[in-house]
Amino acid sequence: MSLVLDAATQDLLFREARTANTFTDEPVTDEQIQAIYDLIKFGPTAFNQSPLRITLVRSPEARERLVPLMAEGNQAKTASAPLVAILSTDNEFHAELPKLVPHAPGIAEAYFSARAVREQVASINATLQAGYFIIGIRAAGLAAGPMTGFDFPGVQKEFLDDDHTPLMIINIGKPGTDAAPFPRLPRLAFDEVVTTV
Amino acid sequence: MSLVLDAATQDLLFREARTANTFTDEPVTDEQIQAIYDLIKFGPTAFNQSPLRITLVRSPEARERLVPLMAEGNQAKTASAPLVAILSTDNEFHAELPKLVPHAPGIAEAYFSARAVREQVASINATLQAGYFIIGIRAAGLAAGPMTGFDFPGVQKEFLDDDHTPLMIINIGKPGTDAAPFPRLPRLAFDEVVTTV
Repeated sequence: MSLVLDAATQDLLFREARTANTFTDEPVTDEQIQAIYDLIKFGPTAFNQSPLRITLVRSPEARERLVPLMAEGNQAKTASAPLVAILSTDNEFHAELPKLVPHAPGIAEAYFSARAVREQVASINATLQAGYFIIGIRAAGLAAGPMTGFDFPGVQKEFLDDDHTPLMIINIGKPGTDAAPFPRLPRLAFDEVVTTV
Repeated sequence: MSLVLDAATQDLLFREARTANTFTDEPVTDEQIQAIYDLIKFGPTAFNQSPLRITLVRSPEARERLVPLMAEGNQAKTASAPLVAILSTDNEFHAELPKLVPHAPGIAEAYFSARAVREQVASINATLQAGYFIIGIRAAGLAAGPMTGFDFPGVQKEFLDDDHTPLMIINIGKPGTDAAPFPRLPRLAFDEVVTTV
């Protein structure tokens, strides 16, 4: 066994976990989301820049604004999920760097004075954090349904502002009946992905 | 307790895990990397597109070509890490889709015929997979040292090809003495990251 992680946890986080398309009615609480965040916030980012931002869509009114912005195939599941989270990047993340990297004053100015650079770097690092967040959802015994099929400018206009770019939207809850209607899809084999030089 | 994951595993994967800057001499085996990959390959990507590719730098000759392409502050640790992995995106990932999503023939042509679209989508999804890979390294009881401080065109030219874009380089091994020389950096609080609508 080359992994330290026990088999049940391997299953919980990766092997048995599936993207969910249906959910039970059981609510997802703020306490659960806080526990997930307080775990995954420790995942590494470049310069500890931590650009991920999360908008929890809780009110029926906000849900009604979001659903029509989803791709048609994502509307029913987004309408019925116990909780929907809009993940975005904070393109002004550099304002937090004096707090996040107190040992390196001036890096905001040295590296991140250009908005285009910030957008690119924030996208990469917030996406890493989105990966950690998906793992964290599973660590809470919940299922994630991540989606990029939505009207990005529409979601930005309705829910964010010019400094925040949508990244993905994740339905969250306990998986329902037939949550993953088809068998697990194949994955690329080790030799198809890994080469040695 | 809102998490299902036990406290020791929370520590292993997130709370106590640190980016390592020094490593012991203990080798990282192919078996360990295969076990990591065979775990994290199940992490979700859009359309199961799985664009992450991994180049293990094992030979001294390859290491010698890589080190000068690293930023100065990354050269010593990349020279001494037991194993170095170059993570890249396969911008021709769509060629694998008939195998990866057999229930959806034609999506390669429908969505991914444009190289610019493929590059953008591959970057996001390979970065998600890079997040899973970092978690997987920790799940093997190893430490990761992810870096984006390197000559991207130089690494592409020396180690990849026109169809593969470098994403990050990760030093991998057992953490050495003084592997994380400063105390854990602060993280943004829940209320700074999460809003509710």
